[in-house]
Amino acid sequence: MLDSFFNPRSVAIVGATPKEGKVGRVILENFIKKYKGRIYPVNPGYNEIMGLKCYRSVSELPETPDLAIIVIPAPSVPEVLRELGEKGCKAVIIISGGFKETGTPEGERLEHEIKELAGKYGIRIIGPNCIGIFDNWSGVDTFFLPEEKMRRPPKGYVAFISQSGAFASALMDWMAYNNIGVSRAISYGNKIDVDDVDLLEYLAGDDKTRVILIYLEGLKNARGRIFIETARRVSRVKPVLVFKAGKTSRGSLAAASHTAALAGNYSLYRSAFKQAGVIEVESFDEMMDAVRILLDQPLMNGNRVYVVTDAGGVGVMLTDALTVQGFELPRTPPDLREELRKILPPHCIVENPIDLTGDTDDERYIKVLEKVLSRSDVDAVVVVALPQVPGIKGGLADYLIEAKNKYMKPVIVISIGGEEAIKLARKLQENGVTVFESPERAAKALKVLYIYSRIKSNTQE
Amino acid sequence: MLDSFFNPRSVAIVGATPKEGKVGRVILENFIKKYKGRIYPVNPGYNEIMGLKCYRSVSELPETPDLAIIVIPAPSVPEVLRELGEKGCKAVIIISGGFKETGTPEGERLEHEIKELAGKYGIRIIGPNCIGIFDNWSGVDTFFLPEEKMRRPPKGYVAFISQSGAFASALMDWMAYNNIGVSRAISYGNKIDVDDVDLLEYLAGDDKTRVILIYLEGLKNARGRIFIETARRVSRVKPVLVFKAGKTSRGSLAAASHTAALAGNYSLYRSAFKQAGVIEVESFDEMMDAVRILLDQPLMNGNRVYVVTDAGGVGVMLTDALTVQGFELPRTPPDLREELRKILPPHCIVENPIDLTGDTDDERYIKVLEKVLSRSDVDAVVVVALPQVPGIKGGLADYLIEAKNKYMKPVIVISIGGEEAIKLARKLQENGVTVFESPERAAKALKVLYIYSRIKSNTQE
Repeated sequence: MLDSFFNPRSVAIVGATPKEGKVGRVILENFIKKYKGRIYPVNPGYNEIMGLKCYRSVSELPETPDLAIIVIPAPSVPEVLRELGEKGCKAVIIISGGFKETGTPEGERLEHEIKELAGKYGIRIIGPNCIGIFDNWSGVDTFFLPEEKMRRPPKGYVAFISQSGAFASALMDWMAYNNIGVSRAISYGNKIDVDDVDLLEYLAGDDKTRVILIYLEGLKNARGRIFIETARRVSRVKPVLVFKAGKTSRGSLAAASHTAALAGNYSLYRSAFKQAGVIEVESFDEMMDAVRILLDQPLMNGNRVYVVTDAGGVGVMLTDALTVQGFELPRTPPDLREELRKILPPHCIVENPIDLTGDTDDERYIKVLEKVLSRSDVDAVVVVALPQVPGIKGGLADYLIEAKNKYMKPVIVISIGGEEAIKLARKLQENGVTVFESPERAAKALKVLYIYSRIKSNTQE
Repeated sequence: MLDSFFNPRSVAIVGATPKEGKVGRVILENFIKKYKGRIYPVNPGYNEIMGLKCYRSVSELPETPDLAIIVIPAPSVPEVLRELGEKGCKAVIIISGGFKETGTPEGERLEHEIKELAGKYGIRIIGPNCIGIFDNWSGVDTFFLPEEKMRRPPKGYVAFISQSGAFASALMDWMAYNNIGVSRAISYGNKIDVDDVDLLEYLAGDDKTRVILIYLEGLKNARGRIFIETARRVSRVKPVLVFKAGKTSRGSLAAASHTAALAGNYSLYRSAFKQAGVIEVESFDEMMDAVRILLDQPLMNGNRVYVVTDAGGVGVMLTDALTVQGFELPRTPPDLREELRKILPPHCIVENPIDLTGDTDDERYIKVLEKVLSRSDVDAVVVVALPQVPGIKGGLADYLIEAKNKYMKPVIVISIGGEEAIKLARKLQENGVTVFESPERAAKALKVLYIYSRIKSNTQE
């Protein structure tokens, strides 16, 4: 149903303009750069914009556009919407602000009017007062920030639904910098029609989306239950992560000023999320760490984690952090202990966390990891590889990349330091081995993976 | 008393060698590069090493060295220690391993022997089995990792005491990359003599150290109370941050394997820290965030925080995070509300968090911040400046740098994104305005600043 928004064959941009710095210009440029379908600029003031024929009005368009984007002042929006309805267009993104969010009676009236028109003509609307859609696969991109202000992330598999437009664009820029691939991002502004439920439903069936992340301030009362029902179905297919803003009563008040959202009673949201298999992330870092680990790592069969480290201290930190998250760090069983004793120098510690100590080299890691990863009583391995240790030269990274695929169990890495650490992290991450700087964040992210593994296995039972 | 370790006029390096890749070579190179005092390599196999006259034994040295560093196999250490004692040397760092940490009777016996010798001659010892001292001001540097494995951080004002050598070197590398200035770092290995208490005492009186960070697994029973008493005195002068590892019983077990530390009952540590004004940090991120904010920001007079944002969503996230940390976000009082209404367009939100919205420019921020910062009922301001917003061009950053000094109250910034965000963050941080990516981490760090402000003001009452 929402496919016209994400995969339109033709797009009308009402309010397209050649004027530098204008929203209607940035959006037109976005489409010219990446969109493969037919583009129709609409603006009575021009015959041509940026090499494209420009139409005086919607009624003059040579075909019914699959999608229309409106970037004209609010008072003119109803008229254009009517024309689009007459033309048969069924999907409209209204970027323009000046509606209910102004708090004025005129804004309220205009919003009411466009709602009625949408109903009359059966038009689905995203917005108004929004940045709309950034679709990395089809090239639909109404995020009206030029590339130098917001870099576009690489094509990939995480979708983001955001009640905050500014946060959505900051996150795209962040993901671009951190090389995390995005499928589609949507920010719906005043959400008079298309909302989190519709989008969740659409993304569930979207084969380019493997992880769904939602920034949510609040749901309208009637939609809460439907959201949870939808989420319950979707979370069986792919992970749904939610960051709920407006958790405290002071934050809820701020949300009310921001999006007129009814942030509501957080404890109700919390338990509803839990029931629906929606995984809540509680900070910016958790959000991004959870996305990364879910994109890259296979699921866990159980909660037994082994740590292999070159730094005893970080081994202890991790042991605490994993224990706090409810993981079991089994004591090394006698048979494994014996095998490790044979391959390790006497000063190494064979007890889990297995400490290879600062004089380790790549070979020592590889020999130990082969033993550990091949065991059926090991559900995930965290490798601490502080690259300050002179013996780490690169072989370990190559091995980890292979081993993750060979053994099909989560292998994550802790690396702390400067350029060397970052180089190591980049190589591993590009090849699907998730790297963290902080032991505590690694443990939290692994917990998300474990929770989702449980949700999936409960579904299959 | 420990001054000979940190500011020696002369240093003997017993076990210095020209052999590439050897610890005795790396340490000698470290000293040649940066240390201004007299350097005496000691090794019976050479007459000269790297252009310096080499001595066959300690007894042949032309003077009593203020500090001796030992990097020879464990069985030979007692003999050298005796010679150093006879010569009158009072400060020795024993880098060599092969003592109690091996778990062998021979290692135990050797450790006992060097303890006795130290007592007999009145020698203070750091080590054995340690990486020793990295002193950024005097050039004493026994961290035996070459520059390409561990970059040295810039000269600065945070001191780090670490029970883990590998973690200490990873942290130095990290701080170098993140441009955080370090005064001195110490890792004491088996800690047969100089320990956390001695170091804390020394750093308290060190005018190059403004913030003390400790990574601690455990204290020997008898030293626990003295540590707390010392910390109580020190924390009145400068902040003492502790990361306690071995918090869980599983982690405590790991610590016992790692450093034979009695990680002990965490709840006892916890309450002792609290009584002593030691601030506990609970993750790697908190550790580094706390260091940064304490180095850069003035103390807080109270807990009233204002947020000024260009992204409503991030304003809500921050409001939640600050509220969770116990801060008050006052409702904007009528007089301020009226002033803001006069200078802001109608669609902006004057309620705290003050939302300048995505069409803001630098000027709008500056006008609002002038009003907010000058008020006596504002104890800190968090500025959310997502640089994707087209109007942010650079004026805001210049203003913030000035304003922080002018108003002498904490001003911290949230910036999320890619290159632009990082450029903005770098400029601000170089000029003492602390920047965070995550609203939740910013709130936690501000909490540390607030806690330390309270500790200081209670002391002065």
